[in-house]
Amino acid sequence: MTSLLSEKTCTACRGDSPPLASEEIQQALTELTGWSLESVANIDQFAKTYKFNNFVNALAFTNAVGNLAEEYGHHPALLTEWGKVKVSWWTHKIKGVHENDAIMAAKTEQLFSARFAPDKS
Amino acid sequence: MTSLLSEKTCTACRGDSPPLASEEIQQALTELTGWSLESVANIDQFAKTYKFNNFVNALAFTNAVGNLAEEYGHHPALLTEWGKVKVSWWTHKIKGVHENDAIMAAKTEQLFSARFAPDKS
Repeated sequence: MTSLLSEKTCTACRGDSPPLASEEIQQALTELTGWSLESVANIDQFAKTYKFNNFVNALAFTNAVGNLAEEYGHHPALLTEWGKVKVSWWTHKIKGVHENDAIMAAKTEQLFSARFAPDKS
Repeated sequence: MTSLLSEKTCTACRGDSPPLASEEIQQALTELTGWSLESVANIDQFAKTYKFNNFVNALAFTNAVGNLAEEYGHHPALLTEWGKVKVSWWTHKIKGVHENDAIMAAKTEQLFSARFAPDKS
């Protein structure tokens, strides 16, 4: 089953766009495997840490998510370390999570599954 | 005047290598413009946030520091966001800062100055 979020399009977010309601956040998290809601300086963010077997692969994923961000004009925080990348999505203008952030998290998940997930065979 | 740290070589760090003493940390910070010592989960780190005028240039710097890290076999945390990159150097094995970290911070500074600093003219 494909994710509903991943089929949606990230639209331009105005300052008066509403943040997601609690129920909408919970609904989004049911679709976003391994993602959680974090509060950083009182700002809600969707976050997930992805694991890799070295630094080079982690940095390659950072670049891939960076390209996705540029494509959609919406940018995450990407914390790259040896063997891991933490991706955090939120919307600066509303100081919280917009539907765009759930959509971009879903696209991040698709990107990882398609190109970076370890062979499960 | 060239930095003394930047002329040194980052050597392999064993678990029994000593962390820098307080005076050595202060001495290093006098050479490292804009860097500070941060404590993250009780682990000392040398950290600096570099500013850029967009996401693409920030990501390019992340890659340049990543290449430097691979070259020396010592890896930082790189927090990439729109218009900024926070670089943090510490040594996992000693849970603190080794001279290597001061050396890598100096090399990061040189890299930024040589290829990423805004034109000062």
